[in-house]
Amino acid sequence: MTTSSQPNLVSRRMLEKMSTDRSQLDKLLAGTVLAHVATIVDGRAVAMPTECAEIDGRIVIHGSTGSRWLRALLNTDATVTVTKLSGLVVARSLFESSVLYESAMIFGRFTKVAAEHTDTMLLKLSERLLPGRPAETRPSLKKELAATMLLQMEITDWSLRVSADMPDDPPVDVAGDTWAGHIVFDGLTAHAVAAPDLADGIAVPASVENFLDNPRGII
Amino acid sequence: MTTSSQPNLVSRRMLEKMSTDRSQLDKLLAGTVLAHVATIVDGRAVAMPTECAEIDGRIVIHGSTGSRWLRALLNTDATVTVTKLSGLVVARSLFESSVLYESAMIFGRFTKVAAEHTDTMLLKLSERLLPGRPAETRPSLKKELAATMLLQMEITDWSLRVSADMPDDPPVDVAGDTWAGHIVFDGLTAHAVAAPDLADGIAVPASVENFLDNPRGII
Repeated sequence: MTTSSQPNLVSRRMLEKMSTDRSQLDKLLAGTVLAHVATIVDGRAVAMPTECAEIDGRIVIHGSTGSRWLRALLNTDATVTVTKLSGLVVARSLFESSVLYESAMIFGRFTKVAAEHTDTMLLKLSERLLPGRPAETRPSLKKELAATMLLQMEITDWSLRVSADMPDDPPVDVAGDTWAGHIVFDGLTAHAVAAPDLADGIAVPASVENFLDNPRGII
Repeated sequence: MTTSSQPNLVSRRMLEKMSTDRSQLDKLLAGTVLAHVATIVDGRAVAMPTECAEIDGRIVIHGSTGSRWLRALLNTDATVTVTKLSGLVVARSLFESSVLYESAMIFGRFTKVAAEHTDTMLLKLSERLLPGRPAETRPSLKKELAATMLLQMEITDWSLRVSADMPDDPPVDVAGDTWAGHIVFDGLTAHAVAAPDLADGIAVPASVENFLDNPRGII
């Protein structure tokens, strides 16, 4: 972790929540697939949502080769923010109440993944999103790979904030009779809906069943 | 909805997902509290995560008056992105697979909420985050209100993309025997953890019980 590109936004309170533990960053990236990628477009900062995955120590995103946004991202400064909201801090006062979260920023520039690696990288991305799914689908077609753009950013310059503390209520409030604690989000519940054009007799596959049994790692 | 400040990032595929329905935007904002606010800091675009709520037609965020970030936000161009990941699109090929989501961008500038409205606005924000909680807590102290900064942005210049379609597989794939459909995220499950300094005999309050019974509107 270096700090060269990191803008100086950090208040005292935020500093307390800073972590330099790379394994904690990796855990966050294994726990959510949604990233917001900030760049300057037409003079304005814009954060675009996109799926992301950490693959081989890099942030990887993808989209259509026709995406103006992806093409504009190439070789320009970008900041990737990945945030997981994991609960609520219910303090004895509204002032001390807040949220449990982990949020990472990764600073750098995206470069294109070489064409010869597109297929392998897409398989890894797909496996990350829905484990087991690649093995249930046909191989990607050449024209599909040609229409897909994969971008990668090295994870070298990053910051991580983790809010996990119990309420820090002053003694006068602790002495009172108001409840305090955390509401912890355990995970999602999810269900499957078959496509209307699905032929009769095609069962829900193992990848989907496994996800429904244990829908973790997505948000 | 105007388009004056909206950068031109939209591809053909994104255009298909655009919505100009304000009620759909309001529904998204009622369904998640996490926003990413993008601004330019030290020449670099950065997206900071923060709680947000729509109150009286405005995006409201808050934090400490000591927050450099909040102060830097004042009267500068900002883009607020609110994204809800609501499921997975499981197509017959990896190429057509994607995610179900709604994502809004609101373009504008934040201004300070006047000091005389801080208390009322904080109550509304807290009610949005955990309904019923303000009535269970003591009134905010003057020094707490003085230490809190609330910022608001008019929701006039915005865009919304909604991805809700079933897989658009080509006929050759539809004719095969691969399953296709949606995995739809129903919502969270959550549990409460009492603070270690909580006195014996203080029961989990109604606001928390109600949230655990129906934890919606958060992510």
